[in-house]
Amino acid sequence: LRAARELGRKAEEFLRLYHGEEVSAGDLDSRLAAVRAEIADTGTYRHTTAELAFGARVAWRNSNRCIGRLYWRSLQVRDLRHLTDAEDIARECAQHLRLATNGGRIRPLITVFAPDSPDRRGPRIRNEQLIRYAGYRAADGTVTGDPLNAGLTERALRLGWTGGPGTAFDVLPLIVEGVHDKPRLFELPQDAVLHVPLDHPERPWSRHWGLRWHAVPAISAMCLEIGGVCYGAAPFNGWYMGTEIGARNLADTDRYDLLPRVAKDFGMDTGSVRSLWKDRALVELNRAVLHSFDRAGVTLADHHTEAERFLQHMERERRRGRDVHAEWSWIVPPMSGATTGVFHRSYDNTVHSPGFVRHTDGAD
Amino acid sequence: LRAARELGRKAEEFLRLYHGEEVSAGDLDSRLAAVRAEIADTGTYRHTTAELAFGARVAWRNSNRCIGRLYWRSLQVRDLRHLTDAEDIARECAQHLRLATNGGRIRPLITVFAPDSPDRRGPRIRNEQLIRYAGYRAADGTVTGDPLNAGLTERALRLGWTGGPGTAFDVLPLIVEGVHDKPRLFELPQDAVLHVPLDHPERPWSRHWGLRWHAVPAISAMCLEIGGVCYGAAPFNGWYMGTEIGARNLADTDRYDLLPRVAKDFGMDTGSVRSLWKDRALVELNRAVLHSFDRAGVTLADHHTEAERFLQHMERERRRGRDVHAEWSWIVPPMSGATTGVFHRSYDNTVHSPGFVRHTDGAD
Ligand code: HEM
Ligand code: HEM
Repeated sequence: LRAARELGRKAEEFLRLYHGEEVSAGDLDSRLAAVRAEIADTGTYRHTTAELAFGARVAWRNSNRCIGRLYWRSLQVRDLRHLTDAEDIARECAQHLRLATNGGRIRPLITVFAPDSPDRRGPRIRNEQLIRYAGYRAADGTVTGDPLNAGLTERALRLGWTGGPGTAFDVLPLIVEGVHDKPRLFELPQDAVLHVPLDHPERPWSRHWGLRWHAVPAISAMCLEIGGVCYGAAPFNGWYMGTEIGARNLADTDRYDLLPRVAKDFGMDTGSVRSLWKDRALVELNRAVLHSFDRAGVTLADHHTEAERFLQHMERERRRGRDVHAEWSWIVPPMSGATTGVFHRSYDNTVHSPGFVRHTDGAD
Repeated sequence: LRAARELGRKAEEFLRLYHGEEVSAGDLDSRLAAVRAEIADTGTYRHTTAELAFGARVAWRNSNRCIGRLYWRSLQVRDLRHLTDAEDIARECAQHLRLATNGGRIRPLITVFAPDSPDRRGPRIRNEQLIRYAGYRAADGTVTGDPLNAGLTERALRLGWTGGPGTAFDVLPLIVEGVHDKPRLFELPQDAVLHVPLDHPERPWSRHWGLRWHAVPAISAMCLEIGGVCYGAAPFNGWYMGTEIGARNLADTDRYDLLPRVAKDFGMDTGSVRSLWKDRALVELNRAVLHSFDRAGVTLADHHTEAERFLQHMERERRRGRDVHAEWSWIVPPMSGATTGVFHRSYDNTVHSPGFVRHTDGAD
């Protein structure tokens, strides 16, 4: 009963927001009455397709850690709430990637599967992102591939995955839990995953690094919460900002840790950090990312442009009478922070709903 | 009376901290009784020299924004609390700079002048740092020198300063308010200010940029608060971290804004931010700073080393049973953030006393 009351409160808050912002929403009072009756009857309620789309877009708008929010209204929403089965979900995740990739012109997209309900947990995707490169840990502790995913890789192997070819960039299978299922494995079809080979604009030999990264960053283990309803399987993507790849995934010492290699091949003096070899290698690696995505015709933003857009977003929202909340340490890019306008101000980090949240979840 | 009670509380808290950490501190109860009596009698109390030194060192230790705290115990403390007169203070600020400069082997140092008391505000130094380069604003709004100090420069001119030679690096006079005084101007003697000419290790032509920076960063407009007593004139310094000069003072668009110039002279493609010319110019400018300070034999830390030291500091304090508090956005260096260990964690930003605080102060 208490849960139903709490849900009713959250539903009302969301519906007021929706009807307040969207003139096309229709009559608030009758919708409120219907939702209250539905909750009393079933313990939960169903969003209309329009409510779902609005909720998902506002969840993006409310993502305090996201610098890419200028285009929040353009998010495309696939309403697949009727799907609860692992196999269906895996198939539609692949389809999500194809639609999002769009031949390189990346489209911001979210696919929403069945929500949780009071009597049963909805489906879950256990991969943090739809596309994750395996990290194979050897007996001596070294990892081939992405060390971030070593745990997920072990889990896939325990579940019966036979492993990929063993490169540094093997795509992991999806681990999906349907509503009545144990976790099951699904390989992503090759045509669903676009990879971009990486090399440096001025150093042809950098091809021998054998680097690549995938075109679409699709977060798949966060819960989309709208008006008290949890969509635990709702993968979403934008396009990449270059630094995510060049200044984190490929550079972090607990990821691909490539700065020493890049510095060495560029002939930098790695004897002392005072030569700023890390800083120089970091810039060259990020130039390689930007250059390679451009050449491949795949959308990817640089951090200067994305920071400008975010300031534009704040200004636009302010004019619409809304505050933009943000988390400084996530908004400021991980390299050349102070060269971007977003560095030189502070933000209110209050969290709002609808939103994307990380639920600690017994099954994980 | 209420103020006295509040002061008594803060004094006690400080004295308990001091006696808890320093075995040489003597008997706590008798000291507490004496301080209580002194406050009842005079409305304030006087720290012993040992209390002052401990308080100043712990104020550094408590500076949540400071990455340089590993050496907090080594802070040298000049006890000049008997000085209240503007002229004496200006003379001893110059002497502070000579002692801190130490021929290039920079010494962390604080000079403490007379505190505030219930019946009179103590002296104040109106310059944010002892050494500040003038910013001369022309009729068209452009600034020669450091735009950050345009306001201070105007204030000095209004107070009768005749201006410096008009370079981009003219040292401003000190603006000091003695206890019974209006603000007065004092030129810093040339032998008190060490400048380091800046050029790039591999580009001799960079000498023609005509760049320099001063050796000692001495903050002079923050209040040192110890056990409820405010030392409003207590300039302190450490050595520079290179990025303060190369990634902020010389690079920020509202400071010397040198990245476009550096990029152009290096022949970088400044047509599009996507070439990462800002990032590349930033690295080269910072290499110039490190190289030039090294050649001049002046202590200056690089951000990689200083970040390592800070993590060492946290570990050392933890072993001593103390938490280290910090402000992420100030601790993480303004360039190549994610390449430093301090980026990859969060901090508790709770503020503690003793500390350095910014008082809004009627006279300003
Ligand atoms: C359109 C282009 C987009 C760009 C350039 C962008 C950029 C970013 C970046 C750089 C981060 C920080 C990632 C990290 O450091 O790990 C981030 C985080 C985030 N973004 Fe976006 N984003 C985009 C689209 C989206 C979309 C479409 C959504 C949701 C519908 C979204 C929701 C989020 C959320 C929830 C986070 C925080 C993730 C977490 O906590 O791990 N973003 N974004
Ligand atoms: C010994 C070498 C030192 C280094 C390398 C160092 C480094 C830094 C850096 C990089 C900042 C940020 C500055 C900015 O972004 O504007 C900072 C801030 C600060 N430091 Fe240190 N520091 C040192 C010594 C000291 C000493 C001796 C004290 C006091 C006794 C001190 C107290 C502070 C305070 C109060 C701030 C914050 C200033 C503000 O709020 O504007 N530091 N330090």
